[in-house]
Amino acid sequence: MGLVVQKYGGSSVADAEGIKRVAKRIVDAKKNGHQVVVVVSAMGDTTDELIDLAEQVSPIPAGREFDMLLTAGERISMALLAMAIKNLGHEAQSFTGSQAGVITDSVHNKARIIDVTPGRIRTALDEGNIAIVAGFQGVSQDKKDITTLGRGGSDTTAVALAAALDAEVCEIYTDVDGVFTADPRVVKKARKIDWISFEDMLELASSGSKVLLHRCVEYARRYNIPIHVRSSFSGLQGTWVSNEPRGDLKVEQAIISGVAHDTSEAKITVVGVPDKPGEAAAIFRTIADNEINIDMVVQNVSAASTGLTDISFTLPKAEGRKAIDALEKQKGLIGFESLRYDDQIAKISLVGAGMKTNPGVTAGFFQALADAGVNIELISTSEIRISVVTRADEVNEAVRAVHTAFGLDSDSDEAVVYGGTGR
Amino acid sequence: MGLVVQKYGGSSVADAEGIKRVAKRIVDAKKNGHQVVVVVSAMGDTTDELIDLAEQVSPIPAGREFDMLLTAGERISMALLAMAIKNLGHEAQSFTGSQAGVITDSVHNKARIIDVTPGRIRTALDEGNIAIVAGFQGVSQDKKDITTLGRGGSDTTAVALAAALDAEVCEIYTDVDGVFTADPRVVKKARKIDWISFEDMLELASSGSKVLLHRCVEYARRYNIPIHVRSSFSGLQGTWVSNEPRGDLKVEQAIISGVAHDTSEAKITVVGVPDKPGEAAAIFRTIADNEINIDMVVQNVSAASTGLTDISFTLPKAEGRKAIDALEKQKGLIGFESLRYDDQIAKISLVGAGMKTNPGVTAGFFQALADAGVNIELISTSEIRISVVTRADEVNEAVRAVHTAFGLDSDSDEAVVYGGTGR
Repeated sequence: MGLVVQKYGGSSVADAEGIKRVAKRIVDAKKNGHQVVVVVSAMGDTTDELIDLAEQVSPIPAGREFDMLLTAGERISMALLAMAIKNLGHEAQSFTGSQAGVITDSVHNKARIIDVTPGRIRTALDEGNIAIVAGFQGVSQDKKDITTLGRGGSDTTAVALAAALDAEVCEIYTDVDGVFTADPRVVKKARKIDWISFEDMLELASSGSKVLLHRCVEYARRYNIPIHVRSSFSGLQGTWVSNEPRGDLKVEQAIISGVAHDTSEAKITVVGVPDKPGEAAAIFRTIADNEINIDMVVQNVSAASTGLTDISFTLPKAEGRKAIDALEKQKGLIGFESLRYDDQIAKISLVGAGMKTNPGVTAGFFQALADAGVNIELISTSEIRISVVTRADEVNEAVRAVHTAFGLDSDSDEAVVYGGTGR
Repeated sequence: MGLVVQKYGGSSVADAEGIKRVAKRIVDAKKNGHQVVVVVSAMGDTTDELIDLAEQVSPIPAGREFDMLLTAGERISMALLAMAIKNLGHEAQSFTGSQAGVITDSVHNKARIIDVTPGRIRTALDEGNIAIVAGFQGVSQDKKDITTLGRGGSDTTAVALAAALDAEVCEIYTDVDGVFTADPRVVKKARKIDWISFEDMLELASSGSKVLLHRCVEYARRYNIPIHVRSSFSGLQGTWVSNEPRGDLKVEQAIISGVAHDTSEAKITVVGVPDKPGEAAAIFRTIADNEINIDMVVQNVSAASTGLTDISFTLPKAEGRKAIDALEKQKGLIGFESLRYDDQIAKISLVGAGMKTNPGVTAGFFQALADAGVNIELISTSEIRISVVTRADEVNEAVRAVHTAFGLDSDSDEAVVYGGTGR
């Protein structure tokens, strides 16, 4: 019985009842002989309410002060959780990110963890306490200012602490039962995955699965910390994410882990680009200089008659305006004819380490889409993933068709409760 | 143009509008050439809402975690205030009590400041920033845990920082125009006091005036920091509390500073106490062992026939039950006949350094009460204060009568807005 890190999202601690339910679960782990470190997000909508307040006093909240403001949310939830645990007769102490030794760089609102020095947590555990740590926050190494880790930050806090404390497992409690073979809101027959490798989980995360963020999985893989994603409501076994299936799990490595989809991206097509060296570089240098992350990139075959080609790429819709503006400014310099912007697209991805050695997977994927009458606009592949872009209004049908074609459908008709996760 | 510390209570920053109004006032002080340190309380009802949440998860919130919870309130208000100031084009940085160097003992929920090491505040000021500091909170010297200072804690934070930074003045902004000669809700003709000595203010504070707490005035007197109590709404000059009137204030030291009243106390009479050495000590040892603060004490002249006497004392109503229980338990040991508990009393106090040299003051006080038909039940005096206990339902009439008798009535009939102050 070693040390476990448990992380609870905002929906799990949305109100006093939720906090008491979570407290009971934590105490159960302690009773089972574990040392327990808990990472907690802000209660329910607290963060949104704080952001709303910030916008009322200042249209462009400043980084340092914005972080100071937002971190009040976890301070509230962690103190309440510690109180609820004490009320069950167990000792608990809460710690801010700074007190827990979560050291970050100085990039406010999206800081990166650069070190974890959990001396106070270790002491609290050794004295028999349950340690409650504020997720999503840290303290900057140089200025000692409060920082926040950005979206999904609490999961990253949990994994980072698990690594620093050499935990047996990092349990991510959320409002779904685990990672599914597809989004259960779209695919009624989606199955919960019992085990998935870090690599496949990374591909799912970057392909639209929202249960775990890419950054957190990456951290866990680097330090080889098994993640157990599970529901704080049901108490069922969830999904294990690790290098190898645990001995007590009878898991056959499936060819395909799951189907992910993402409707948060848009497509920009740069039309009439001279087909000569340096043109693509100029386009993507402009994009990079504006700190815009792009996803898929496709260059059409050049039309011999004109010497011109089109380059398409996808990017978050939220960055669309900025990218268009940046490219328009450089139009003369880069030398293209026009820009086309399309935010009615969806990306569908098939993920699975098994596809490396199964040449039929790509063909099967395209066939399933063709049978469903779904047109493919862009294609991108990696060793363990194939992604295509389709029309947004065809996405649900496409996902269901692919899910069925690869034998992922569950036999059960039970509905699965599914919602967003906390930060 | 030196350094000023400004403190704003919860009612001054109750919403986004209030925060923006306060930000403007702060920026004005900066524009006038001052270095500005601002101490801020939690917004409006935030603290009460947090206490309510705590009670929902645990009937007896634990000290350390309760402090962690409550300090979220100032974190929110101070970050928002810094944002609002930046929005006006000035630089501001917010600091927690810990970051501001407010070092306390480890008594959670009512910690005492034992040192202030404002290195980061000084640096922020030197770099041209306005420094915003969370009131009411500090960090314990030994365990580095977050502590809170208890009721009136933000005022104490402000005075302590003013002392550590050698400020010119500590401005306490509140929702009233200053300190008045009596509670304006009771005495329509109460006058705002332009200047009052630390000593008189201390007596007023311990006699029921709620504008400044005793503890904060005591701190200011020890370090000789002038306090300026004023409204965050009106911008008028308020009340200066200091050793000597400022040169530019034409203030004649009045004989009487004001009339305070207090209806928060109860009276316990220990009936039939044997009139022999050690009896009173036994009673008050019992009270002290239960950490109950008593106020006035009176022992009747012993009746020669019985050798028994009665001892009465006043104490906060909230402590009444505990005191009665403690005394009852010791009844056999102490040896008294019975206990009488009376919570329908009021204390009326006349305060003024001038009364030391004016023997007629006591007589005038009693005469005014007699003329108003008010019966006196207990009397207690100090060098600069006379207090009496009367029936609670006579208090308003009594205060008005005394206020008029000592020539304190204002000529103006203007109504004064008066409310509670923040913590």
